[in-house]
Amino acid sequence: MPLDINEILESIRRKDILSISRIITQIESSNCDELLSEIFPYTGNAFRIGITGPPGAGKSSITNELITRYRNLNKTVAVIGVDPTSPFTGGALLGDRLRMAQHFSDKGVYIRSMASRGSQGGLSYRSQDVGNVLDCAGFDVIIYETVGVGQIELDVMKSSDLVIVVLVPESGDDIQMMKAGLMEIGNIFVINKSDRSGSDKLKTSMQQIFSLKNNLESWNNPIVKTSIIENFGLNKLFKQANDYHNYFKKSGLQNIILKDRYKQQIESIVIREFQIKFWNKVRKKYLNSVLENDQKDWPSPINLLKKIKS
Amino acid sequence: MPLDINEILESIRRKDILSISRIITQIESSNCDELLSEIFPYTGNAFRIGITGPPGAGKSSITNELITRYRNLNKTVAVIGVDPTSPFTGGALLGDRLRMAQHFSDKGVYIRSMASRGSQGGLSYRSQDVGNVLDCAGFDVIIYETVGVGQIELDVMKSSDLVIVVLVPESGDDIQMMKAGLMEIGNIFVINKSDRSGSDKLKTSMQQIFSLKNNLESWNNPIVKTSIIENFGLNKLFKQANDYHNYFKKSGLQNIILKDRYKQQIESIVIREFQIKFWNKVRKKYLNSVLENDQKDWPSPINLLKKIKS
Repeated sequence: MPLDINEILESIRRKDILSISRIITQIESSNCDELLSEIFPYTGNAFRIGITGPPGAGKSSITNELITRYRNLNKTVAVIGVDPTSPFTGGALLGDRLRMAQHFSDKGVYIRSMASRGSQGGLSYRSQDVGNVLDCAGFDVIIYETVGVGQIELDVMKSSDLVIVVLVPESGDDIQMMKAGLMEIGNIFVINKSDRSGSDKLKTSMQQIFSLKNNLESWNNPIVKTSIIENFGLNKLFKQANDYHNYFKKSGLQNIILKDRYKQQIESIVIREFQIKFWNKVRKKYLNSVLENDQKDWPSPINLLKKIKS
Repeated sequence: MPLDINEILESIRRKDILSISRIITQIESSNCDELLSEIFPYTGNAFRIGITGPPGAGKSSITNELITRYRNLNKTVAVIGVDPTSPFTGGALLGDRLRMAQHFSDKGVYIRSMASRGSQGGLSYRSQDVGNVLDCAGFDVIIYETVGVGQIELDVMKSSDLVIVVLVPESGDDIQMMKAGLMEIGNIFVINKSDRSGSDKLKTSMQQIFSLKNNLESWNNPIVKTSIIENFGLNKLFKQANDYHNYFKKSGLQNIILKDRYKQQIESIVIREFQIKFWNKVRKKYLNSVLENDQKDWPSPINLLKKIKS
């Protein structure tokens, strides 16, 4: 078994795409704590970018533009599409992926989707684990692209080094944006589709919101107006991303984030190990037998636990 | 200490509002597992309604109308406003509460807000604990009203017996609604503000979506058009809520849900107890001392855990 893990680790470090894809599929469905633990020491080199914002803001197009610019600098890029949506809309991300079709044949670009079917809380952990695999494989940049702006997306963003929030000029009217907590998690804000009217008004009102915030950090959240159709703002956005990357490394922020990720990794292994050990067959059976009784006869949870442990 | 808990339990069962408010504040900030365990056997009597939907759909107004109708039948109602939003919009719920002002002086109505400041995953558990306190206190109906449609809100809805999704005629254009998984969690759908045009179109397209779903349950999700201004559909909505309540009790669904909640309660106590025990001072100190080193010298998480446990 340990030999196997070393072989897998080696294949990941060789950037063997078939192995990487298999490992990711395994991570999505089962417990790979041992492998992930071995992978961890080889992480911390990739720059992780999270791209979020309301549906239709153009997140995939922005991702696409960033990929092109990183590739021009010969940097390898992995994209993880995170889609916590329902089976009803399972196809949504597929369409988005098509916008990146030009990069499909490029070996320096790896694109992968992850979906959740109601597995509560799990997707954000697993997407971080997948990020670690791709980091270990030596991708220079990892981009997390999300579909919507729900809690899972926010959690995914927390495991990014840089969060780019993509809005459109009309987003100003949309209180949803504020409510979703986007203003707090973003490091760079993009007003995409700025060929349409309203972008200056949105920019001004965002600047007002930022000025209300007690900003103790030395990074000022830049707001960049972009348009894919009229091809403006995109180089500026890329420059801001690179500026942030430098800031991230020099300010000590990188160190703080790496420590947090290490702690999270340990915490989740500890809990999973414990749960498997605690809920053995005898205990599960006992709990289920108690639940067969009428609700009136159920003991208080703490009393049941006392019995289960004895 | 056990005497204390019995006293608190008694004060809750007496529906002492001051005690109840204090207990809820305690639940929001600290570990009350022992008390909650004692409370649990006195729960399972209240009917728990979750009301969700996009901002501006009129959730508070619908809640208000339901309160009035339950009060007319002499049923007591507790409302828990769940607001997982950011500090930026901390005031949002306050305005909503004002719409229920007419019930503030009614002793049969208890209104309480719960907010989260980034405590990941915690709010949905705590809102269920608060529901248990109010259930134990003898409130006939507990209404969870949420602000938006994020993951926390969906989790809160999962701990409701009946989920009412409130939409507006314009929601049809809003792909966000579908993406948020609202179609799956709802038991009753309200097209509020149906005095505006577009409600029939939305109703038809929703019916089409439902017909695609393999519905094995015997409850057909009704769609009710309402308007507060023109005062229609609200009695029909109330009737549907009561029909569902009967279905819920007779179909065996109630029993399944109660079992789930019991298991969840036990699971969360087990994990919290374990975490407190596991992360003692020595282990925390050791972990932090390791993190003082350069990242290259950090052991793999599993190796660190081996050392920590030995």
